[in-house]
This record gives sequence, structure tokens and C-alpha cells, in this order.
Amino acid sequence: MIIDIHGHYTTAPKALERWRNRQIEGTRDPAQMPRASELRISDDELRETIESNQLRLMRERGLDITIFSPRASFMAHHIGDFSVSSTWAAICNELCYRVSRLFPDRFIPAAMLPQSPGVDPATSIPELVRCVEEYGNVAINLNPDPSGGHWNSPPLFDRHWYPIYEKMIEYDIPAMIHVSTSCNPNFHTTGAHYLNADTTAFMQCLTSDLFKDFPTLRFVIPHGGGAAPYHWGRFRGLAQELKKPLLEDHLLKNVFFDTCVYHQPGIDLLTRVIPVDNILFASEMIGAVRGIDPETGHFYDDTKRYIESVPMDAMDRRKIYETNARRVYPRLDAALRAGGR
Amino acid sequence: MIIDIHGHYTTAPKALERWRNRQIEGTRDPAQMPRASELRISDDELRETIESNQLRLMRERGLDITIFSPRASFMAHHIGDFSVSSTWAAICNELCYRVSRLFPDRFIPAAMLPQSPGVDPATSIPELVRCVEEYGNVAINLNPDPSGGHWNSPPLFDRHWYPIYEKMIEYDIPAMIHVSTSCNPNFHTTGAHYLNADTTAFMQCLTSDLFKDFPTLRFVIPHGGGAAPYHWGRFRGLAQELKKPLLEDHLLKNVFFDTCVYHQPGIDLLTRVIPVDNILFASEMIGAVRGIDPETGHFYDDTKRYIESVPMDAMDRRKIYETNARRVYPRLDAALRAGGR
Repeated sequence: MIIDIHGHYTTAPKALERWRNRQIEGTRDPAQMPRASELRISDDELRETIESNQLRLMRERGLDITIFSPRASFMAHHIGDFSVSSTWAAICNELCYRVSRLFPDRFIPAAMLPQSPGVDPATSIPELVRCVEEYGNVAINLNPDPSGGHWNSPPLFDRHWYPIYEKMIEYDIPAMIHVSTSCNPNFHTTGAHYLNADTTAFMQCLTSDLFKDFPTLRFVIPHGGGAAPYHWGRFRGLAQELKKPLLEDHLLKNVFFDTCVYHQPGIDLLTRVIPVDNILFASEMIGAVRGIDPETGHFYDDTKRYIESVPMDAMDRRKIYETNARRVYPRLDAALRAGGR
Repeated sequence: MIIDIHGHYTTAPKALERWRNRQIEGTRDPAQMPRASELRISDDELRETIESNQLRLMRERGLDITIFSPRASFMAHHIGDFSVSSTWAAICNELCYRVSRLFPDRFIPAAMLPQSPGVDPATSIPELVRCVEEYGNVAINLNPDPSGGHWNSPPLFDRHWYPIYEKMIEYDIPAMIHVSTSCNPNFHTTGAHYLNADTTAFMQCLTSDLFKDFPTLRFVIPHGGGAAPYHWGRFRGLAQELKKPLLEDHLLKNVFFDTCVYHQPGIDLLTRVIPVDNILFASEMIGAVRGIDPETGHFYDDTKRYIESVPMDAMDRRKIYETNARRVYPRLDAALRAGGR
């Protein structure tokens, strides 16, 4: 079985974007604020956007199941206040839940949170609870920078975030650390902000003792861990200077990397440097890089091809494709087992 | 000949730090502000700090010459106003110049600029002129984020920076794009802020047409290019989505990467992915990572060992060690030739 742990609903019906644009307009002119109930999307529309996009490519590439969350760049937690984010998160999470009900063998949901800059993360807990208990979500996406590129929240090791971690522990769910759109003109969203956030989150784990406080807390660092694997020697050396344990002991029981690295040399490095138990198959398809690589004739984000080209034994490949995901996302494993898989 | 294009004076006599601390105190209490003339460091002290540190390691490792600039993390452009940065830059640049006079065969200076958040970069030009014309500097370090982690200056493609670029073109000198200390608690200075800045700068070059305006402008992206080579497929794909030319044509005549990547797999990836003409030998020694790698028994920052272990022909290795640097830093080449080298 091949589990893609990093998919977003980037192909949602246009009605969603139109509703969001009205909501953004409503943050400026409250008279324009739409009600959630004004958004109507039929099951047929959902089915169509999935069948012709993600599911089509999953079939072509031989991927079995995707952990599916709202479009990351559309979370845009910096827009409006908590109430705006709350309504928006509820809508987006409900759509991913509905997709998971329409294709129960193919998609299992992960939740975005109704984060808002300067607002206590504990306010996200009711949505998190609803997504886990009512919608069967197996993970959350946690945005370490709800400001969208101004980085004015406390670091992930700050007690600010602990209410979220406590709930994650209670439900035994991991968080993918994933920012959203950058509204800072210095940072291109998918070419700089995403990768910077990955590197930043990894280093926050390294400098702190977060996993002493939460030994079972699990973070997935997307996009192949940002710059971390490429600079693994630098990070090992910095941990040493900071008198931290070896990275294996310090954070590799808690930190995992996905395979969203869109060329063979990158995947070769990732699998050479990072222990196989810490690598989770993912493609973030259909996402930031949708084209065909002229050097290979294949889609950049067809990451399975790169994994297939790395020499490794069948058991290690199975870890990357399936068993690591079952371990890191126990609720995914439980759902699969409940379906006899 | 082996040229290390990335060295900082991290080992300056303690009197420098003491003077700086008094200057920082003076930003709060003007009565405490020291005069530049109160800093006294003898040639013997300079000689001692270099002989026992950088020069000792250069001899041990077989490195011939280092492009030597003030300590990056101490630039701290966010401290005080332009006048504070101006005095501090003048002092630091003079020390690197003096080192270059004491060891003319071993060190050649590059300048820090007296940048200050919110201040027109054109104000840095007098110091730049002095460093090139009087001190023989062959390059500058340009800080794309003088705020120290708040990223509130315009991106590098903005006309804001053009006065610096015009002077760089006039003198035919490159800029290393190098941030300083982070005062944002989200970003560890050497483990996140440096690498994020590298990735950010690279992506700013990619999204813009800066090198159409300045076809001979040259940027060196340090620390192996941040996350760029590891995610080269992503960047190629993003350039494609943005309808930019191939990266070779779009920016590789103008953008160069150093080899400050502190483990073999990282250097293997760098040399596999990036054309050899765009790779410049460097170690950033003595810098962020000073320890010995227990996996190899050698210093993490002994980057020559990694380059030596990459299979390549002698001509390519010479490009990385020497001839690329002579091309990217023509004033270095001229100085070497003037000395018969």
C-alpha cells in the first residue's frame, strides 16, 4: 500500500474561492460578510474535482490513499480576525471530510486550524476536537506563523503552543508544521516561505527541549524538511555546540520528513542522510509545482518515481510508503484496519 | 591555488567586542557613547588572533588565501541608527584591511556596509568606496534584512537597492548576500536565519528580472545556497510555472553558491546539481560550526575534504578552488596577478 501523507484540496470548486473572496470583502465592509450557509457545493461537484485531478493522478501513479487537508496557501490565517478564520476553517475542513466520505478508500482528512495572529492557540481546540471526533481526522496542520511571513508568534517551543500539543497527545495525532500564503513581499510563498518555515521549525525543535516535555509529540516537517537534510552536518554540529544529544536521540523520535522534494538528487540525499524510519512518502500533489520536468519527461511532483530509483530493500521502501505512516498517524492505521486493510 | 571566498574575522581581539558593547550601551545612554579612537588594537594583537586561528587552519588544510570580511553575526545592523552602524562598519572594515596588510599573501578584504533598517542603501556608498579604493576590498557583504529577522526591507529586486548595484557594477565587484544576527526569537541565527536568507535571496532572483536590468551583477549565495540546490527541481519547476527561462539562462550567469555545507552528502548534492562554474570554494572558518564531526573525526567546516572526495576532473576542481573565484572577483584576480600569482 502507498500512502501519500501530504495532499491538499487545491482543486476545490470555484464556488469556494468566490465565497472566500466575499468573506475577505466582508472583513472590510461587514455588510458584505456572507453566511457559511450561502456556500453550496454538491457532492457531484466535489466528486468531479477529485475524480479528474487527485484521484486520476493517484491511479496513474499507483498511490492508494492520501491524507487530505485544506489548501495550505488558502488558509491565510492573517486575513481577518479569529471569527473569520474560524468560519473559514470549519468550511474547508467540512469539504475535506465530505471528500473522505465520497472516497472512503482513497482519502482520509487532516484539519487546518482556525488560527489567527495574536490569538491564543487554545481557541483552535474546539475545531480540532470536532475534526477528530466527528470527521475522523487523523492529523492537523499547524501554522507556526499565522501572520503570513512576519513571524511575530512565539517559537514552537514556547508554552503558547502547549494547549495544542496537549490535545494532540490526548488524541495521539501528529501535526504537519505548514505555513500558508506569505503576505511579506520578501518571501515567495512556495519558493521561500514554505521552505524557510520548515527549516525554522526544525531548528526550533533542535535548540529546545520540547520533546522532553512531550516525549510522544510528533511533528512532520514537509517539503523534505526544508534545508535540514541538505545541511545535516551543520545541524549535527550546531546540536553539538549547544550540548544537545545526538539528533537521533534528541529529536528523531518526534520529527519526521516527507518526500516532497522534486528531483532525484534531492530524494537521493534525503534517503542517504535521514534514517528510513523518519521518512514518509508524500507528493503534495496537486500543488506548487504542477509541470513536467523537461529533463525527465515526468511530473516534478511524481515523487514515487524518485523513491523507486533509490536502491533500498523492500522492507525499507515499505516503511517509507506505508508502515511509517501507520506508526506516525495511529488513527490512520486504525481506520485502515477497521476497513480490513 | 585554493581560495576560500568566505571567511569572517570571528576571532578579533576582545577589545573589539568590549568597544561594541559600550557603543550599544551608548545607543541607550548617549553619555556612554565611546569614540572610535578609544578602540586601540595593536598589529601584534591582530597578528596573534590570525596566526593562532584562521592562518593556522589554512596551513593545516592547505588553503592559500581567504576573502576576509567582518564577523557576519556582529554586523547587527538593527542596533542603533545609521550613525552607529556607520562607525561600527568603519571600525570592522579597517581591522580586516589591517589583517590583509599584515598577511598580504593570505587575506584580501571584503566589506560590510553601514546598513541600517529603513535607511536608504545609498548611504552605504561612501564606506563602500573607501573600502574598494583605499583598502583594496574585492567584494561586499550585502544584508538583505538589516532588521535582523523582521524582514521589513524591500526585496533585493526592488529599486531601493539599485544604488548599491550601480556601484558594484562600476567597480566590478560581487556581493555576498549575508544576513546578520537574528533578533527574532523564531530564527536561530546560524541554524535558521542564515539558511532562510539564502533561500529567500535565491527565490527573489528567480521571480524577478533583476539580471535583465543588471546583466553583469553578481551575487554569491553563501551556505551552499541555503535550500536551493536540495530543492533544485522545485525551483526549476517554479521558474517554469512563472514562465521564466531555464535557470541556467535566467540567473546562473549572475548567481553563485559557496561550499559551506558541512557534510559529504550535501557537497555531493551541490556538485551534482549545480554547474561547476557556479560553485566557489569556501569554509566560513572559523564560524558557526567549530566542532569535530564524530562520524568522520574531522572538523565539520573542513570543506576541502568533502570536495576532495567528489570524483571530478582536475580542471573542474581547479574551477571550484580558484578560477571561478578569479572570474567572479576580478579585483581579487588583479591583486593576485599584481603579486605574480
